[in-house]
Amino acid sequence: MTAQDVKGAWAVLPTPSKPNASDWRTEDTVDLDESARVVNGLIDAGIDGILSMGTLGEAATMTLPEKRDYMRALVEAARGRVPVYVGTTCLNTRDTIALTREALDIGADGTMLGIPMWCEPSVDVAVQFYKDVAEAVPEMNIAVYANPEAFKFEFPRSFWARVAEIPQVVTAKYIGVGNLLTDLALTKGKIKLLPIDFDYYAAARIDDFVDAFWSSGAVCDPLVTTTLRDLVADARRTADWSKARAFHARLAPTAAPLFPNGSFKEFSTYNIGLEKARMDAAGWMKTGPIRPPYHIVPEPFLAGARKSGEMWAALGRELRSAAEQPPPSMTS
Amino acid sequence: MTAQDVKGAWAVLPTPSKPNASDWRTEDTVDLDESARVVNGLIDAGIDGILSMGTLGEAATMTLPEKRDYMRALVEAARGRVPVYVGTTCLNTRDTIALTREALDIGADGTMLGIPMWCEPSVDVAVQFYKDVAEAVPEMNIAVYANPEAFKFEFPRSFWARVAEIPQVVTAKYIGVGNLLTDLALTKGKIKLLPIDFDYYAAARIDDFVDAFWSSGAVCDPLVTTTLRDLVADARRTADWSKARAFHARLAPTAAPLFPNGSFKEFSTYNIGLEKARMDAAGWMKTGPIRPPYHIVPEPFLAGARKSGEMWAALGRELRSAAEQPPPSMTS
Amino acid sequence: MTAQDVKGAWAVLPTPSKPNASDWRTEDTVDLDESARVVNGLIDAGIDGILSMGTLGEAATMTLPEKRDYMRALVEAARGRVPVYVGTTCLNTRDTIALTREALDIGADGTMLGIPMWCEPSVDVAVQFYKDVAEAVPEMNIAVYANPEAFKFEFPRSFWARVAEIPQVVTAKYIGVGNLLTDLALTKGKIKLLPIDFDYYAAARIDDFVDAFWSSGAVCDPLVTTTLRDLVADARRTADWSKARAFHARLAPTAAPLFPNGSFKEFSTYNIGLEKARMDAAGWMKTGPIRPPYHIVPEPFLAGARKSGEMWAALGRELRSAAEQPPPSMTS
Amino acid sequence: MTAQDVKGAWAVLPTPSKPNASDWRTEDTVDLDESARVVNGLIDAGIDGILSMGTLGEAATMTLPEKRDYMRALVEAARGRVPVYVGTTCLNTRDTIALTREALDIGADGTMLGIPMWCEPSVDVAVQFYKDVAEAVPEMNIAVYANPEAFKFEFPRSFWARVAEIPQVVTAKYIGVGNLLTDLALTKGKIKLLPIDFDYYAAARIDDFVDAFWSSGAVCDPLVTTTLRDLVADARRTADWSKARAFHARLAPTAAPLFPNGSFKEFSTYNIGLEKARMDAAGWMKTGPIRPPYHIVPEPFLAGARKSGEMWAALGRELRSAAEQPPPSMTS
Repeated sequence: MTAQDVKGAWAVLPTPSKPNASDWRTEDTVDLDESARVVNGLIDAGIDGILSMGTLGEAATMTLPEKRDYMRALVEAARGRVPVYVGTTCLNTRDTIALTREALDIGADGTMLGIPMWCEPSVDVAVQFYKDVAEAVPEMNIAVYANPEAFKFEFPRSFWARVAEIPQVVTAKYIGVGNLLTDLALTKGKIKLLPIDFDYYAAARIDDFVDAFWSSGAVCDPLVTTTLRDLVADARRTADWSKARAFHARLAPTAAPLFPNGSFKEFSTYNIGLEKARMDAAGWMKTGPIRPPYHIVPEPFLAGARKSGEMWAALGRELRSAAEQPPPSMTS
Repeated sequence: MTAQDVKGAWAVLPTPSKPNASDWRTEDTVDLDESARVVNGLIDAGIDGILSMGTLGEAATMTLPEKRDYMRALVEAARGRVPVYVGTTCLNTRDTIALTREALDIGADGTMLGIPMWCEPSVDVAVQFYKDVAEAVPEMNIAVYANPEAFKFEFPRSFWARVAEIPQVVTAKYIGVGNLLTDLALTKGKIKLLPIDFDYYAAARIDDFVDAFWSSGAVCDPLVTTTLRDLVADARRTADWSKARAFHARLAPTAAPLFPNGSFKEFSTYNIGLEKARMDAAGWMKTGPIRPPYHIVPEPFLAGARKSGEMWAALGRELRSAAEQPPPSMTS
Repeated sequence: MTAQDVKGAWAVLPTPSKPNASDWRTEDTVDLDESARVVNGLIDAGIDGILSMGTLGEAATMTLPEKRDYMRALVEAARGRVPVYVGTTCLNTRDTIALTREALDIGADGTMLGIPMWCEPSVDVAVQFYKDVAEAVPEMNIAVYANPEAFKFEFPRSFWARVAEIPQVVTAKYIGVGNLLTDLALTKGKIKLLPIDFDYYAAARIDDFVDAFWSSGAVCDPLVTTTLRDLVADARRTADWSKARAFHARLAPTAAPLFPNGSFKEFSTYNIGLEKARMDAAGWMKTGPIRPPYHIVPEPFLAGARKSGEMWAALGRELRSAAEQPPPSMTS
Repeated sequence: MTAQDVKGAWAVLPTPSKPNASDWRTEDTVDLDESARVVNGLIDAGIDGILSMGTLGEAATMTLPEKRDYMRALVEAARGRVPVYVGTTCLNTRDTIALTREALDIGADGTMLGIPMWCEPSVDVAVQFYKDVAEAVPEMNIAVYANPEAFKFEFPRSFWARVAEIPQVVTAKYIGVGNLLTDLALTKGKIKLLPIDFDYYAAARIDDFVDAFWSSGAVCDPLVTTTLRDLVADARRTADWSKARAFHARLAPTAAPLFPNGSFKEFSTYNIGLEKARMDAAGWMKTGPIRPPYHIVPEPFLAGARKSGEMWAALGRELRSAAEQPPPSMTS
């Protein structure tokens, strides 16, 4: 793949779990049936790509056998219809390479890859890490997983300029639009930087190269995500951004209750639980319990997350109602 | 073990590596011979306990087979003469429990255990994590590995008060003396808080309960570490602290060049490389190359670390010269 | 004034100083002649408004008599041709009100007002502060001076929502575009948020309400600033953003050497010295020495700032050359 | 004065205020009668020195005329019986020098001096600032006011080493004991570092040079503060620290409810209000309302602060009861 091949709406998946997954005694926690259902449902709904096994995908808390099973389930369900990126972030270079090779063998198209996070990495360490993985598994596409809280790394300008020289690095799960123009200039079209759905309108206005984004909301209801994608594409074609702007104005308020006290740092502490609560409240999929040790989340924060999911779902219902479409098959 | 059983000078070990250990292609990086030599040398020198596989022990970057081999080598070399604590920190509760069980089966006396560090843990998450591991492997002693940079956790008062209720938690690799009196009050004699060697004089003055400490400098020359221990013990017996104080004043300046720009945060970024450079420069052991991805360290920082090691070694030579002792057998 | 009255390119001024201004013995440091020259030059060049006495304007280090003289000089030089905002930030509410009243009496149109910075303010404290000043000096327009480093305040969403209810608050010296859409939604057209020149292209794309910006670069050469303004206005009219985009791509690289190690925090430590070095190197005005205690700046950082100024000046020369215009009269 | 002249228990004062002091319309807020009463009461109770006009002393929010009046009141009340240090921290070097000269003329013995806090100071800037003030007002003693939150400065080792070379710098309002031994070594007996009362036991154990401390609790009831001083002095003389240790164990828990969520940073946001609430609840003095803009404090935090004050007062009553002393005259 190249940066140009990364287009449209990419769903970020949770890893569905079985009922007793919060208990450390449980060995086999992945709900493979729900995993397959979700992948099929997203593809049927028109989602363009899959990102999985990041923070909210509980990459930290899945065991190695669970990761293998889940990767296989995703790849088999997708059947090549859309690219599937899996997370292979480990605590060091060698384990990452070993897991990335397994992912390649299983048939994953790429890895959404963060940086070993025990020690805060310098830019030199971070860049060399991506170089080493790319050299070791050259057939694997790489999405830089640019999460500053998880990886103790600010993803500064010098990082983007240097990581863009690695051919395997074709895209990035990116955060914010504050540095977008600069980082686009530094990556020179070699990395498709994916903003979050909530930033897609702004990012798309800022630069035409931005024609793809990531959406964990996709599993709250993919119709909201694909509608955002399509309205931005229409705007670009017609040079009339009013409908895309209006839709953004409907979408944006659903983010507010997801972030405790409006804080990204506080959200990051409870990322998994908040995202799962949001998704479950939306009702499109069943995420299942949180794997330990992150299964303890303050109830007031969960309430905010649920409200966020309900707002997303309500927006989806409204879209269907306006289109006189039947309800989505997934929830029936 | 109980908190009262943790006494004296505990050495914190690096994991010695073979010549090509910085290359991600290398599968078997642990220098088991040097590992055994070091353990024997430390015990012969009078060290009271072993802590291993923490940050500078490269727990993050050893593969699982390497961890097993290394744990076995440590336990076999120690032959029960001193307690051996190994690190079993993983990215989640279940993997940690599995590795802790292996460590117990191999014969380790305890685990120096940090907190899963992908997400910043809340106090509830951190305490429950230790509870779960203690419940799952009740025969294993636990040393809380209280490193705020690695584990994104401030180890606040409420944490200490609650973790002290877990019987398996008997000690902690602790940092600083600023909160020592308060944390001692909260842990009520159930956790032996171990300050670093550089803080031992102050910590011992503050509270008589503090009669043990950790020392990564022990592998620069254990005589310096045991001398510190013995001078404090003498002072406590005689109520004359002048010699211990004078020795602290000799020891403390060796720390300064180890910390780039005097910063603990910056030190943490290059922890492994700086500690290994310090130890190699001291000449008592051979640490070998750094495992990836942390093998890239700015040369000026390394120079400071080497100076620190040379200063420690010079202090050791001076002690031997004063005692008209022969040079240590380890380096011959 | 209302938010709608704030339009176009607003210059942020340094406070020009006399030769011995870095010496604490000097009592009267403001170069009033250069101050007047600069205001006239900016207005002649087409600048739309003046912001002064912020961080780089050395509000912290001017004495009260100097502030009075300087405010008078600015107001007299402007002669009502463009709005003049002066800084009246003090360490507390009462001093701020007293200085704001003086500024109003002198004829200033508004105050660029930060928050008392001895203690980190809560949102309640920050909002009440603006309310109190507005109540005390209701005829004075207020520009929120949203500098997080100076004022120990993140300027979160709840702040913007609440401060927008104060009629006197019509604009803000704003930083970044990451939260722009959200903050615009919260302020509901009542506050004209001014991005920095380097962000103006992106901000203007994101929302049509953004038709004004601030530029400390204006005193490096105002033609660059007004060209940016005019190209964005042309783009908005013609719906062809290519020229504005191309000009942004020329302008943006001049920012890079201004920020030591790419860090806004580090820039903030040396803000005054770096901005003055940039401006002096550009050659359009003479800023004079830095007032104490901020007059000590590392030479390598100054070199970067100078390069930034030279790049800005080169861009200005290129614009003139393209337009076959004579060189600007200010520097002759 | 020299460092050796700074001994015993130094009270840190709030600036008592009149009933409507929270209203920005009030011009003359200082309760000079209560100020004089407090100084007399502290001296009668045996306090060894006065520190005033720091953060909790509302130096930020007093007007210049109020500062003059208050300094005069303190000096007149003390009548040379104990040294009186006043705060002269301003936003820049020149204003600081002017105010310090006024303080000297009024008869203050020293200034408790922080660093201009608009921009984060480098070590060079901070040291030069103290040098300039010392050069300008050489007769004035200086206490470094080492508050990292207020002054955006970590007060690192290099600072202490360099500021100790300024003869006028004889003491410091210091925080923590974590770096105490190192900072004592660097300041070589030229600066008497004053720990807070809650740290005095630990600090005194660590080093015999520490024979003085600061106490804002002194105005909750000075008997508690002087008892701490005397028990440490007794311990030093008799080499039996058990009574001092036991008293520390009684005193320390009164600190816990003062710090919201155990956080010094959060405490710093509401420093003034929390300290005043603590003091008022203790009942020994009347602090009066908080000056704007810091007069808004969350009620749950205030409740904690009040509890802290009540605990301090209870400890004082217990001391009196044990000594069969009458209640203090101040509150009658």
